[in-house]
This record gives sequence, structure tokens and C-alpha cells, in this order.
Amino acid sequence: MPTKLIMLAHGSSNASWSDAFFDMTKNVTVSSEDAALAFMELSEPSLHDECRAAAKQGYDHLKVLPLFLAKGRHLKKDVPAMISELIEELNVEIELLAPIGENQILRDAILGIVHDELK
Amino acid sequence: MPTKLIMLAHGSSNASWSDAFFDMTKNVTVSSEDAALAFMELSEPSLHDECRAAAKQGYDHLKVLPLFLAKGRHLKKDVPAMISELIEELNVEIELLAPIGENQILRDAILGIVHDELK
Repeated sequence: MPTKLIMLAHGSSNASWSDAFFDMTKNVTVSSEDAALAFMELSEPSLHDECRAAAKQGYDHLKVLPLFLAKGRHLKKDVPAMISELIEELNVEIELLAPIGENQILRDAILGIVHDELK
Repeated sequence: MPTKLIMLAHGSSNASWSDAFFDMTKNVTVSSEDAALAFMELSEPSLHDECRAAAKQGYDHLKVLPLFLAKGRHLKKDVPAMISELIEELNVEIELLAPIGENQILRDAILGIVHDELK
């Protein structure tokens, strides 16, 4: 089986917040069954739900891509703890990637938006 | 005077979180005095600090660009309320832009990162 990529957003009690993430990622979640969106807390599906579903589908390597701009307590402690539990429960490899905010592609995009606004 | 662009991040009690935003934006804040970074809460400088400094420098039009991936309560209520107060206090035009997560440049960057990881 190929790798499954799970994009992980924070989650919110505000439905329009999570809808923005579904909208932002639908281009890839619709075109590839190897990509899914999950939330750390407050919104569904949870990271646990998506990892369990992927393991059931036969994926044995999952990558979790945090849709976060920077690493705070959640990405330093809470999410690694969730992933350790899930690895133990599901017996699959789960790799926590750097948050998108650390990726130069994203940083260049932010600078591009800023330069457009400064024109 | 030209327009001043203030990039607004959430803020955190965790210094490495805010450092990530200084690092992410330094390319533009160093090269242009028309750009600055501020935080909504918990980190310094605050939005109030930066708007007051810009008004003092003579800027009469400020744009606030939220470095947020989606609009939640903060961008729907808290930040507009802060901006209303600042407009009244400083007698300058302050425009709240859409968060970067709603910009197609940023969404394309996220999809680019996802496609790279799916390869």
C-alpha cells in the first residue's frame, strides 16, 4: 500500500472554521484517496478516526502534516503523544512532519501575499 | 505617506512560537519599513503598539493582514473590535484584510506541499 497523508488542523467549536479547512484541502482529498483531513480537537474527524480508518484500509505508513503556521505546545507535546498512542494501538508507522509554516514553499507564498499588498 | 502593512499573528506564551513568526516575516520586515509584525495577544509587539507606532510615523492608512489559516472568533469579533478602537483613538484608516488562509496563493502552496509529500 502507498503512504497515506493526513493533514492535521487544530479544530474549532466554530463550524465555519473547520469548513475553511475542508474547502482548502478538497482539491487533494477529492482527487486522491491517499490524502485526508483530520482535526486535533473540537472538530470531526479526529486524528484517531483517520489513523484508524487508514490502518483498516491497509495503509502501514501514515504521514501527518500539521496545517499549523508554527510549533507550539500542541505540536511539541499533545500531537506526538497522540501519535505514540496510535502507533501502539494500530501497529503502523506514523510520521509527524514539520508544520506547513516551516516549509519554504509556504513562507514564500506568505511573502508573495505581503508584497502584493505593499504594491 | 505610503500604506503600512501590519502582519498579525495570534501570539503565544511560548517564545519559540512567536520567534517562528519573526523568522517567517523577517525577509520583508527587514527590507521594507512599510511592513511590520504584531501579535493579537500574549506576545509583543501588540497590534495596538504597532498601529500607534505607524500613526506616529505619519502613516494614515494601515492594512492588517492576519497570519491565520481560517477565520474564527478572533477574526470575526476580537480583532475587528480592536481595530474599531484603534481607528477611533488614532484617527487613521485601518483595513482588516482576509486571513492568508483564504488567499489562493497560500492554498496553492499548501497543495504543493501535500503533492510533494504524496510522491
